[in-house]
Amino acid sequence: MNEWTSSVSCQAEDTILIRGYAIEDIIGRLSYTEALFLTLRGELPGEKECRMLDAALCSILDYAKGPAPVTARIVVSANPQIGAALAAGILAQGAHAVSPQDAGSLLESLAQRLRDGSSISTVAREAVAEALDAKRRLPGMGHPSAMKADPRADMLRHVATDTGYWKDRCRLMEALQREYATATSRQLVINVDGMLGAVLGDMGFSAPEMAAIAAISMLPGIAANAVEEMRAGSRIRMVRDMEYRGPSRRKVPKKDQRD
Amino acid sequence: MNEWTSSVSCQAEDTILIRGYAIEDIIGRLSYTEALFLTLRGELPGEKECRMLDAALCSILDYAKGPAPVTARIVVSANPQIGAALAAGILAQGAHAVSPQDAGSLLESLAQRLRDGSSISTVAREAVAEALDAKRRLPGMGHPSAMKADPRADMLRHVATDTGYWKDRCRLMEALQREYATATSRQLVINVDGMLGAVLGDMGFSAPEMAAIAAISMLPGIAANAVEEMRAGSRIRMVRDMEYRGPSRRKVPKKDQRD
Amino acid sequence: MNEWTSSVSCQAEDTILIRGYAIEDIIGRLSYTEALFLTLRGELPGEKECRMLDAALCSILDYAKGPAPVTARIVVSANPQIGAALAAGILAQGAHAVSPQDAGSLLESLAQRLRDGSSISTVAREAVAEALDAKRRLPGMGHPSAMKADPRADMLRHVATDTGYWKDRCRLMEALQREYATATSRQLVINVDGMLGAVLGDMGFSAPEMAAIAAISMLPGIAANAVEEMRAGSRIRMVRDMEYRGPSRRKVPKKDQRD
Amino acid sequence: MNEWTSSVSCQAEDTILIRGYAIEDIIGRLSYTEALFLTLRGELPGEKECRMLDAALCSILDYAKGPAPVTARIVVSANPQIGAALAAGILAQGAHAVSPQDAGSLLESLAQRLRDGSSISTVAREAVAEALDAKRRLPGMGHPSAMKADPRADMLRHVATDTGYWKDRCRLMEALQREYATATSRQLVINVDGMLGAVLGDMGFSAPEMAAIAAISMLPGIAANAVEEMRAGSRIRMVRDMEYRGPSRRKVPKKDQRD
Repeated sequence: MNEWTSSVSCQAEDTILIRGYAIEDIIGRLSYTEALFLTLRGELPGEKECRMLDAALCSILDYAKGPAPVTARIVVSANPQIGAALAAGILAQGAHAVSPQDAGSLLESLAQRLRDGSSISTVAREAVAEALDAKRRLPGMGHPSAMKADPRADMLRHVATDTGYWKDRCRLMEALQREYATATSRQLVINVDGMLGAVLGDMGFSAPEMAAIAAISMLPGIAANAVEEMRAGSRIRMVRDMEYRGPSRRKVPKKDQRD
Repeated sequence: MNEWTSSVSCQAEDTILIRGYAIEDIIGRLSYTEALFLTLRGELPGEKECRMLDAALCSILDYAKGPAPVTARIVVSANPQIGAALAAGILAQGAHAVSPQDAGSLLESLAQRLRDGSSISTVAREAVAEALDAKRRLPGMGHPSAMKADPRADMLRHVATDTGYWKDRCRLMEALQREYATATSRQLVINVDGMLGAVLGDMGFSAPEMAAIAAISMLPGIAANAVEEMRAGSRIRMVRDMEYRGPSRRKVPKKDQRD
Repeated sequence: MNEWTSSVSCQAEDTILIRGYAIEDIIGRLSYTEALFLTLRGELPGEKECRMLDAALCSILDYAKGPAPVTARIVVSANPQIGAALAAGILAQGAHAVSPQDAGSLLESLAQRLRDGSSISTVAREAVAEALDAKRRLPGMGHPSAMKADPRADMLRHVATDTGYWKDRCRLMEALQREYATATSRQLVINVDGMLGAVLGDMGFSAPEMAAIAAISMLPGIAANAVEEMRAGSRIRMVRDMEYRGPSRRKVPKKDQRD
Repeated sequence: MNEWTSSVSCQAEDTILIRGYAIEDIIGRLSYTEALFLTLRGELPGEKECRMLDAALCSILDYAKGPAPVTARIVVSANPQIGAALAAGILAQGAHAVSPQDAGSLLESLAQRLRDGSSISTVAREAVAEALDAKRRLPGMGHPSAMKADPRADMLRHVATDTGYWKDRCRLMEALQREYATATSRQLVINVDGMLGAVLGDMGFSAPEMAAIAAISMLPGIAANAVEEMRAGSRIRMVRDMEYRGPSRRKVPKKDQRD
């Protein structure tokens, strides 16, 4: 467990090899998206994989009033270090906002059931029943903030169909939506998290890789918001309308009167 | 100071606008690199800008035994959350490792002197003299770890020449190297930080934007290392050969014997 | 959901109130431990609560070769910013290392079963059976790295007995250890995480509060290691014996030969 | 440079030594504040040092609408992980908010001039003149948000006088305030950052150690705000009144019409 090993990169004869390719053969020849695929997965992507990954990486560029970019703005207003802002922005993503890995993990376990011989609709019906039973929210569904549909999910579906990545997990995601509507009479949209979890899963990405791709997709917005705030020279951003609900002013009791 | 404003994105009629473009027009049509340029700078890049930015984004993909990927590995071995690993990996970049913004800031101030009428060699000579005088290290130069040249810098130069981004800051960087050699008889290479600072500066990126681009360039490696470590099931990575140099075992004195 | 409220602090008549107490009445009068208890819980601690919390806060001060301090050292060697090192050190704590909240959450749910009328040994026996059944590790037990006992856990137990905080969750933790030994014939120690989860739970702290207390307990070590590394002037800490297990050097294929 | 060494802690005979003291001798016997002093500085504090450090650690417990606690609230609303919130809250401290290390570094360099034989008022007069000349803000002075005085600074001064830590750096800080008023006719208060930088400096803490102490002082508030937000079940905190100032909706041009 304690030996350090890496199959990602190494130094060799005055260059760095990334998955076996010399860095000087990569720079100027691969796009960032191809290089990301290579570094994560170990092999170069085909053209269609690259188009699909580009679509995924463009799907959550920014949502200016959302947690991650606002966090980045506040951080630089107190601590004018761009790295601190990017790190904090990434930490402002998780189970409640931007987590394709949650849908991805569910779809992974359901895909296993498909391989065991069940049909897509059976698997989806069971999964919906299990979630309702356990009062567990189904990940990847639900109207995003104030929008009636999720155009990001729709375009991802379009590109997935076009590139041949509309496969089992994508169909399972749609079946989950359908079975949920049947079981509850509530029609939820598949949101961008759900669609990313499905499509990236069908491309062979694992749940942690999905989370990394989502973070990279958010970084342009996180960076742009932080840079804009630094340029504006903001100092110490506050929330002005913070309402206080604690006790009113009181005196510190003497030590022997505290218990 | 305290009103919240953003010129990066907004919500409009059931979609999200990134710098005015609907997200569904971006997904599937722009590459990540184009979308990053748009989000940071406000306008779409031309083809050459895109090639140059792709080269920059591919230039520091991974260096497996370096601070950022090792940090990511240690973090997930204790806290198996990919977001924590990415954030910590980003924090492991700065003044001593991966900071094109330092060369970029110096070149920005020197470019100002060019605009004031001095020649490139004069400005470079003065800058080297000032640094030597103040015993300040010149950023962007120096042999990277155990390598005699920096092939990443060389390829960036090649792409910059090809795309027309070999401009004033790039020439200043080379002049700094030359004048440093003349002044000290020490021949230092321009390293990847220096070349990124020069090229990105000549593309119009500010110092904080350079830092963000460098962080995004490192993320494939940070993510790949973290994912590999999670997959291996590492738990609690330690440094085995930590040598202790503190006091040997002693007794805690009674309170009244402490001062 | 979107109104901002706080019951922790507010500004009032040229001072700041912490849970109703003016900051100038706190400074110089309360210890940090008392102030921490007040800020987290809303009321001042009694003397015994304070002693118990001090013991908890002293229980994981440092483990120099462990994930958090090593992360802090690597981060400052690349990015000499103490805040970045502290943040990264905190991120290097979680499910696999330093997580009293995991034992705390389990004990919380088991304490609920006690309140429903079961005995401590019954609840513990069931919990062990459930964990073994689900092949789930029981949190808070197991030999810490290379140690045959956990003196930190032993001292916490001692202080808890002394201050009256050896209550239901503590007894449950011991019963889990006992029942695990009976079920598996394996004798595991209760480690510092388990004991913290039990004691802090019996003091009324919630699982997220336990995680915060553990992080505060680690910060002296994280800070001391980072400061020592900065003082030594380390630059770019590497892992020297990183073994490469990826593909050997190869050429990037032409674009049309990639799929 | 690359050997790992620590003088903070080590493992020895089934225990952990912190600066030579066995952890089981620390737990239950030292307060957290004593243990923090020991871990950072290598020796146990005297009673007065401990009182002074306690005062410092209580001085910036929370400011509920400020950057660090708001950051922590936003982060957990998206990513319900307390460690992520604590780390992000720490990153929301720096040059513009909570940075005793800036005043501390200035006072350190001025204290050097005292040792070279100048008087406190001369050194302060020169430092003010240099700052005004360079249009540089003097750290540690200035009215804190909406307050006419800084009661935290006043109480720190009181405790410092009481414990014998009102020494050269403290006197220098006051002289800076006085000389600034003389030079500019503007009366600025010494704020909590300035007083912390002075007092902690007179206690022998280095600038990075001051930053760590400030971060630890903020953590009760950061943690309490994060916990309150988690308990309230907040999801995806947004800034509702974010005003958009970017371009209005426009169409993505075809690739050949972009340059």
